[in-house]
Amino acid sequence: MSLNEEVELLRRIPLFAKIEPAKLKLLAFTSQRLTYKPGDALFRQGDPGDAAFVIVGGEADVTVDTPTGPLKVARLKQNDFVGEIAILCDVPRTASVVAASEVTTLRIEKDLFFRLVTDFPQIAIEIMRVLAHRLERTTTDLREARQKS
Amino acid sequence: MSLNEEVELLRRIPLFAKIEPAKLKLLAFTSQRLTYKPGDALFRQGDPGDAAFVIVGGEADVTVDTPTGPLKVARLKQNDFVGEIAILCDVPRTASVVAASEVTTLRIEKDLFFRLVTDFPQIAIEIMRVLAHRLERTTTDLREARQKS
Repeated sequence: MSLNEEVELLRRIPLFAKIEPAKLKLLAFTSQRLTYKPGDALFRQGDPGDAAFVIVGGEADVTVDTPTGPLKVARLKQNDFVGEIAILCDVPRTASVVAASEVTTLRIEKDLFFRLVTDFPQIAIEIMRVLAHRLERTTTDLREARQKS
Repeated sequence: MSLNEEVELLRRIPLFAKIEPAKLKLLAFTSQRLTYKPGDALFRQGDPGDAAFVIVGGEADVTVDTPTGPLKVARLKQNDFVGEIAILCDVPRTASVVAASEVTTLRIEKDLFFRLVTDFPQIAIEIMRVLAHRLERTTTDLREARQKS
């Protein structure tokens, strides 16, 4: 893929939509494009958290280890991002992410992640929004689970 | 309180510790200092989310409405911030916050909140970290609650 094609592809990811093309070139240079086969792990629960990922194509499952085996907790689709918790909290991976189809990702190393959110407030706000939405949903689920038990 | 005393007070809040004093003066001018008596609500579940709050002094309880009455889910202390979920998600308040002692807060209106996270990446990163930690803890609690039921 040419650099211009790569930049075009990045621009179609909502998280990067408002970044100038010149700066997207830097992102295209410094992030890694990785492809996974169905069943391959992007990372496993307990791994050190050294990078975040944007799903460029395909779908992946988020699973957590339980005494009775892995439990699927979410399905990731195109444009979703994942893996930022371990980077932000400086903890090992809190879940596994496994390709459900052929999956293409943009792998963003920890240093680059912090550079992006520092240089592009829109990315920081978008990540805050996604975290806040997830937190709101998880808190609602927790309330329901506790009322049942 | 003089403006310099106000700036000194803001500098002692970790969220603002890295901001230059000249810019803290702007924050001191544009944010509101509010005091609540025990039992007063900073906001109630279902209210529109028009501001975030930093707890400057005292303690407050986060409660959610349940069929059997309000359920306490967290205790807020000095330097905690609260109320950013409704701003970020553009939804009504998902919980109530009620003063447990005399409480002093810094009330940061929605527009100022977005200006702060845009102008000061360190604040955005700190808020992301806090959201990520809360999400990690809530997800762990949810997993445990589901395993019990």
